[in-house]
Amino acid sequence: MSTGITSKDSEKRLVLVSGRAHPALATAVARELGSELVPTTAYDFANGEIYVRFGDSVRGCDAFVLQSHTAPINEWIMEQLLMVDALKRASAKTITVIMPFYGYSRQDKKHRGREPISARLMADLFKTAGADRMMSVDLHTSQIQGFFDGPVDHLMALPLLASYVRSKVDLATLTVVSPDAGRVRLADQWSDRLGAPLAIIHKRRDPSVPNQVKVHELVGEVKGRTCVLVDDMIDTGGTIVQAAEALFEHGAADVIVASTHAILSGPAVDRLKNSRISEVVVSDTLPIPDDRNFPQLTVLSIAPLLGRAIRQVFDDGSVTSLFDGHA
Amino acid sequence: MSTGITSKDSEKRLVLVSGRAHPALATAVARELGSELVPTTAYDFANGEIYVRFGDSVRGCDAFVLQSHTAPINEWIMEQLLMVDALKRASAKTITVIMPFYGYSRQDKKHRGREPISARLMADLFKTAGADRMMSVDLHTSQIQGFFDGPVDHLMALPLLASYVRSKVDLATLTVVSPDAGRVRLADQWSDRLGAPLAIIHKRRDPSVPNQVKVHELVGEVKGRTCVLVDDMIDTGGTIVQAAEALFEHGAADVIVASTHAILSGPAVDRLKNSRISEVVVSDTLPIPDDRNFPQLTVLSIAPLLGRAIRQVFDDGSVTSLFDGHA
Amino acid sequence: MSTGITSKDSEKRLVLVSGRAHPALATAVARELGSELVPTTAYDFANGEIYVRFGDSVRGCDAFVLQSHTAPINEWIMEQLLMVDALKRASAKTITVIMPFYGYSRQDKKHRGREPISARLMADLFKTAGADRMMSVDLHTSQIQGFFDGPVDHLMALPLLASYVRSKVDLATLTVVSPDAGRVRLADQWSDRLGAPLAIIHKRRDPSVPNQVKVHELVGEVKGRTCVLVDDMIDTGGTIVQAAEALFEHGAADVIVASTHAILSGPAVDRLKNSRISEVVVSDTLPIPDDRNFPQLTVLSIAPLLGRAIRQVFDDGSVTSLFDGHA
Amino acid sequence: MSTGITSKDSEKRLVLVSGRAHPALATAVARELGSELVPTTAYDFANGEIYVRFGDSVRGCDAFVLQSHTAPINEWIMEQLLMVDALKRASAKTITVIMPFYGYSRQDKKHRGREPISARLMADLFKTAGADRMMSVDLHTSQIQGFFDGPVDHLMALPLLASYVRSKVDLATLTVVSPDAGRVRLADQWSDRLGAPLAIIHKRRDPSVPNQVKVHELVGEVKGRTCVLVDDMIDTGGTIVQAAEALFEHGAADVIVASTHAILSGPAVDRLKNSRISEVVVSDTLPIPDDRNFPQLTVLSIAPLLGRAIRQVFDDGSVTSLFDGHA
Amino acid sequence: MSTGITSKDSEKRLVLVSGRAHPALATAVARELGSELVPTTAYDFANGEIYVRFGDSVRGCDAFVLQSHTAPINEWIMEQLLMVDALKRASAKTITVIMPFYGYSRQDKKHRGREPISARLMADLFKTAGADRMMSVDLHTSQIQGFFDGPVDHLMALPLLASYVRSKVDLATLTVVSPDAGRVRLADQWSDRLGAPLAIIHKRRDPSVPNQVKVHELVGEVKGRTCVLVDDMIDTGGTIVQAAEALFEHGAADVIVASTHAILSGPAVDRLKNSRISEVVVSDTLPIPDDRNFPQLTVLSIAPLLGRAIRQVFDDGSVTSLFDGHA
Amino acid sequence: MSTGITSKDSEKRLVLVSGRAHPALATAVARELGSELVPTTAYDFANGEIYVRFGDSVRGCDAFVLQSHTAPINEWIMEQLLMVDALKRASAKTITVIMPFYGYSRQDKKHRGREPISARLMADLFKTAGADRMMSVDLHTSQIQGFFDGPVDHLMALPLLASYVRSKVDLATLTVVSPDAGRVRLADQWSDRLGAPLAIIHKRRDPSVPNQVKVHELVGEVKGRTCVLVDDMIDTGGTIVQAAEALFEHGAADVIVASTHAILSGPAVDRLKNSRISEVVVSDTLPIPDDRNFPQLTVLSIAPLLGRAIRQVFDDGSVTSLFDGHA
Repeated sequence: MSTGITSKDSEKRLVLVSGRAHPALATAVARELGSELVPTTAYDFANGEIYVRFGDSVRGCDAFVLQSHTAPINEWIMEQLLMVDALKRASAKTITVIMPFYGYSRQDKKHRGREPISARLMADLFKTAGADRMMSVDLHTSQIQGFFDGPVDHLMALPLLASYVRSKVDLATLTVVSPDAGRVRLADQWSDRLGAPLAIIHKRRDPSVPNQVKVHELVGEVKGRTCVLVDDMIDTGGTIVQAAEALFEHGAADVIVASTHAILSGPAVDRLKNSRISEVVVSDTLPIPDDRNFPQLTVLSIAPLLGRAIRQVFDDGSVTSLFDGHA
Repeated sequence: MSTGITSKDSEKRLVLVSGRAHPALATAVARELGSELVPTTAYDFANGEIYVRFGDSVRGCDAFVLQSHTAPINEWIMEQLLMVDALKRASAKTITVIMPFYGYSRQDKKHRGREPISARLMADLFKTAGADRMMSVDLHTSQIQGFFDGPVDHLMALPLLASYVRSKVDLATLTVVSPDAGRVRLADQWSDRLGAPLAIIHKRRDPSVPNQVKVHELVGEVKGRTCVLVDDMIDTGGTIVQAAEALFEHGAADVIVASTHAILSGPAVDRLKNSRISEVVVSDTLPIPDDRNFPQLTVLSIAPLLGRAIRQVFDDGSVTSLFDGHA
Repeated sequence: MSTGITSKDSEKRLVLVSGRAHPALATAVARELGSELVPTTAYDFANGEIYVRFGDSVRGCDAFVLQSHTAPINEWIMEQLLMVDALKRASAKTITVIMPFYGYSRQDKKHRGREPISARLMADLFKTAGADRMMSVDLHTSQIQGFFDGPVDHLMALPLLASYVRSKVDLATLTVVSPDAGRVRLADQWSDRLGAPLAIIHKRRDPSVPNQVKVHELVGEVKGRTCVLVDDMIDTGGTIVQAAEALFEHGAADVIVASTHAILSGPAVDRLKNSRISEVVVSDTLPIPDDRNFPQLTVLSIAPLLGRAIRQVFDDGSVTSLFDGHA
Repeated sequence: MSTGITSKDSEKRLVLVSGRAHPALATAVARELGSELVPTTAYDFANGEIYVRFGDSVRGCDAFVLQSHTAPINEWIMEQLLMVDALKRASAKTITVIMPFYGYSRQDKKHRGREPISARLMADLFKTAGADRMMSVDLHTSQIQGFFDGPVDHLMALPLLASYVRSKVDLATLTVVSPDAGRVRLADQWSDRLGAPLAIIHKRRDPSVPNQVKVHELVGEVKGRTCVLVDDMIDTGGTIVQAAEALFEHGAADVIVASTHAILSGPAVDRLKNSRISEVVVSDTLPIPDDRNFPQLTVLSIAPLLGRAIRQVFDDGSVTSLFDGHA
Repeated sequence: MSTGITSKDSEKRLVLVSGRAHPALATAVARELGSELVPTTAYDFANGEIYVRFGDSVRGCDAFVLQSHTAPINEWIMEQLLMVDALKRASAKTITVIMPFYGYSRQDKKHRGREPISARLMADLFKTAGADRMMSVDLHTSQIQGFFDGPVDHLMALPLLASYVRSKVDLATLTVVSPDAGRVRLADQWSDRLGAPLAIIHKRRDPSVPNQVKVHELVGEVKGRTCVLVDDMIDTGGTIVQAAEALFEHGAADVIVASTHAILSGPAVDRLKNSRISEVVVSDTLPIPDDRNFPQLTVLSIAPLLGRAIRQVFDDGSVTSLFDGHA
Repeated sequence: MSTGITSKDSEKRLVLVSGRAHPALATAVARELGSELVPTTAYDFANGEIYVRFGDSVRGCDAFVLQSHTAPINEWIMEQLLMVDALKRASAKTITVIMPFYGYSRQDKKHRGREPISARLMADLFKTAGADRMMSVDLHTSQIQGFFDGPVDHLMALPLLASYVRSKVDLATLTVVSPDAGRVRLADQWSDRLGAPLAIIHKRRDPSVPNQVKVHELVGEVKGRTCVLVDDMIDTGGTIVQAAEALFEHGAADVIVASTHAILSGPAVDRLKNSRISEVVVSDTLPIPDDRNFPQLTVLSIAPLLGRAIRQVFDDGSVTSLFDGHA
């Protein structure tokens, strides 16, 4: 057994790589790690094809590739796929894809026949490109963990957001509200964490009216209460603002909104800015350009959570405490 | 291009194969199809290993393998896997796995660290064995469709159950109730279909008591109403019976239970029989042996729905209408 | 062997599905086939995620999915991937991806370390989504056929373009010119087909000047000749226009350009319009919006070629004659 | 090459995990390793679905998962599959499945058409769940090594059993006997190791009797000899006890039985206990509950062999010496 | 559901393709099928690389690729792999690899550490190239069926050979002999089929001599008998000829040899020709060039069996009767 | 987190393994690494099947398997595949396949329908056998890198060859010549590296003659110049020798040939020896037996380049500088 060359020098090396979607978050995560991003060239060719190349060797490294799935979302997903391919072909030892917001996560099932299950497709595309592991924050449904064939570190922003809310309102007057039937489980977690009662808004056909008109119905009590409307993401803001209106109509004293992912598409900013909602608390899993900011918006940074999780993964520590979402 | 042998005789053939778990359902489905089950030898060796063999050739067939994931559930899942392997090696053209109740569907995510995602594993095991397609009824969560790498025909028993309920109660007095936060989406579908209001029971920590005691809280109005408690499955019956109690405590006039999958484990029968629930409506996706029957139980047959779906798959017709669940 | 249901009705059905990138081409191909496109819903959600759904059943069909990889190219590639996933989950029997221009085909190798091989990645992404076969026109390099794990029908526009050129110029005065070292093989095919001599432009370091300045060098004779500059694609037009200039400087009488894929990015239209090139002959593998049209541009339709190839694939005929590119 | 974080702390860690089938063996192996089992929660839900969870982090570990494939065998195989899935999703670095007795190993080929090849299926199921390597003792046929797509450490109990037999009998009077044609190769190894002659019992049609009655035929000489009947497993004991009877009928002085795997199903204990066999020597690859013990039974522990093999695998040493089966 | 083009013309077509190893067998099989071989170009480039190309379209066909794994065996295996790749890329619907003798089948397990399992590797190579199914005759061990991930049609030459033997000798004087411990199972099948007694030759260490000299030992009675020595293959003939010698030494009246695969390497012909064996009965799964023929050799054609099996596969009939080996 | 056994001893070990094709190169590479080859048993069985076995444990090693794809090329490729399988099953940690000349690289696309893409097949066969990474020198086309699903280290002999040429000729009189249209890109690299002008020989139909006679045409100026004819490989030497003749006819003063891979099949040696070419410069990626040597041949060793690349891969250093080919 004496042939061959042995080497004691088996240091391991972590590298953090970032796409172009959200440089501020990537820089903040690198700072949390006490490191720097791998110098990376990334640009679009004239016809829109993306070019990427890393400036440092990544051979033998544990590579983490961060990309925020913000608009133009297909561009950024493709860039992340290309980065994974480049890491694989450059002999990275392991590749962890970090998508703080998981693109296409709402298409996690066939709502009707002949649709794709886009969230599963994303998991498979990253696997094919070469991803060994995924890390994400507050998946739209927890089942998406099962779409990826490998370890998924599913982080929760709930402690971050809830701790902020707790510091701002009197818990005795607080009611947690789910804006529709699909978010009741999330509201339930908030209700449990803050010890506050629950209310639900749901839509159904009005049986008294033909042609299947849908009406908003409030289940639970909100009169005189401070309501925290919770959702995993705010996209166009329509559901949230209508839900807030319904709460005020039922006598709510105040409404604040807490949501991990601030997509803030199209009319979202105007709707929220002009609503009676007193505060909108979000994380920075997605970039919020200056022209999408507004007075009621509070942005909490997800970087410390991502940094801790990356460090745990690299050190072979337990991420479970971060999963469980208890501070 | 003249070499070779051509054959005009390209009939296609559908065969239905069944494991030993629920012969009555298999026979009923075969009857719906106007066919017979493939003669199959299946038994346990002395040490519990299962032996299976088909009595007819299945070469070139579209094979459908039906197994009900009832207790002993691991035995029946393994038998179905072995049948799929045997079909693959016997040159079946396509293999569709029919699991009216999808075993391990409640383990569809990691609730905590270091758990399996058993529902995804099941999908992968069947894929590995050789399954091309899956068919199931009322998956615990719709996302499970995305666990299988191929077509999944997700059938719904809601029309069957709801149509029965509609025939028995006055819709004007009906309220649909979700027994916990996780089933609100299902209750929402019932509410929408029947045009009835919604109520929800959820558990949370009682903030007035230390040590995190959980209390049941009713959200919504049930006084004087006929409540339909809906769930996808009844396992030990604990949640359902407690929920029914809570409804009666809040003044419900009557409580009936509607659930697709009648697991009825352990104390379920005693709990339900001795409760004030007036009727328990279920389907026969799982076998109900005589000693598990009880006076309030109504069993509706799922066989016609399965038969129609199989026929549509074989004829390359659209199963979408069956998905959408509108009669 | 008598169990089961047999069906004589084993018609096969071809369906053509199209993304949103180039509806005119899709419609033209459908017309060639004497058919219509499958009605398809496709739009962007507010945050840019794409939604697709087919209006007809595709169960058991031989599906062909056409998408032109034009800008925004990542958007259209992703849409095509989602369509393939939807077809797979809707039980299409076979799925053929048609990409008249294969996106990312220029990144078909690592030019330097730590780059992706994007063209291989694209092939793998489509395979993962569910593609069984690919069809494309004039791949940037023929080796890309080998990137896909399955049949690739590689069609050639050369007969179409060359036949047009032959009809317009006197072959006796014609010289075929490759604009750089990478296209010599293509120019060689033109030269062979038209029986015309060859010239080549290539760049190299000027040994007489320090700092590695590159100079254009003409290899071959063009004085007084009508030059056909051939390339598989025209992107920004820089190379082509510089090559044309070099030809005029060396005394060319006339320069026409022939190229399959008219990307025409950024400054391409201005450069070509303002050059001394007398005609630019292209196909419509990529859409050319009105504002990118210009007087010298001639667009030949690729639809008949695609239609014939699809028909041959469906009928299990030979596509080889189309490969070989002889009219 | 200076970006990134390096860590010198690249210790590796071995963990041993056990299912519920044979805790005594697992504990003994852990003791051999000077370690402890990872604390594990494993129980059945009311409907028989298994729940497993590890109490310690296994991130980055070399995990070994031990399960004895005893009755209820499908239950224990499924538990082991779930454990592998949980280890994979919890980021174990490598996963070695230890199955001292390989379940379904007798179904290692199609004896007739339309049967599964269950032993291959098992290998594939474990691969799919996430197993990197397998370890087993005395596979029913050595070819089963080739069913797994990865390294298989195939250990042999022959030295353990033969060394015991040698200590108990006079080799000069010993004859090794194969109980049927399928075990001659094993008997040949015993014969070679102990330097003892060989005899074989085989069944064939009696040509003198119609209707294909099978008779036991003894090939070789056993008169006055001490016979060691060898087999890889004792299931119901029928073959072994009939063979022993035949040996006594042919004048054998004594019969002892040596077999690695003591399945001892159904009537096995009664048959052996009441036979004229003087001793039955087995290993503890399978648990032997107290009510299955009997006076003639001698159980030798396989734990030291498993412990040594695990240690060698972890230390990247050679397991070949253990393969070769020479003490 | 009206879009798309339907075609009633769904004939299926069988094509038979052959490598260069054994053209006589391929032609004979084609004749059995009433068809012709697909015209195929196959030659070696100057450096030994093989070139293959089919002269007819195989699009949509059920293709059967026949190659005999004779010397130079690696050349012929590679040629068959290339043919499978070409069929896959030419859109054959299904590809069945026919290897009448399965190359590398003797390396079906690791005899010692650090060896390949070459027979499994062959199965995987063909799967990777694109094979859907395999067909072979008398695999060295039946477990090799399980090495391929798909259907394997395992044909048996035993009826062919045994029927010939029966026609030549008096069964009452016949004894079936296995030349070593590894072939006892095969001898057992012969014994059962012909109703003849069994004898075995095996080697073991001579306990009376140091240094582990091996001696041949005969188990069973052969005095005055006509012995049929059976083996699946005759390679160098050493084992067979030594076994025959041992039989004559023990008083055998006559020895004939029956074996499916006539490899006849190196000294085999001389050894057999010069031995006292009266007849050597083989099949033509491997080509026997004229200079390897000898007076005692009888060659029976396997072509009718292959032809029947191919026809059954194509017609979706049952091959099981052919498996079972009963005429 | 305290269970389990930790080990600080995590040295890594590199082993170099070689097939039988080119022992001199393997030994030279080992010497460059300051190591020795793993003792390996490799021979052919009588029927041509190859047997391989390693003499040392390779468990946990980074294994590099070197084989030169020389004639008999299929034999050596198969041997290398078997070695990879043996390494995988012996638990090597990573397996890098080194093929200094990549066999079948010229079949990197379908030149016509119904051909294989043999170069892609080779990549897939090695992946299937267990290769993690590939290393090769001067691939016929760079796209072949993309055929392998994993890292490919593509080394270039250009610096080695060009540096030698530069030392022998006056660059001022040098012209680089491509012998056909397919090698222009390579000639372009030489031209760029040496600052020398370019000429090209290409074949086309002579338009003045019917029946498509092809003529050699020289594009560029060679009169009085020293021409370096460059090609990646010299097989039968036909193209090169004809090209050299054409150059002399056009007045070249001298012709030398530079080529990485010296296949030198069939008539190559005679052709080159008897030509007016003054020197043929090659590397030793392929063995050159004494009887293939000739006076004009100069062989430069590739071993130092391979040694450096292996070392870099093992040390997780950057191979990019070696890729880029700048000394």
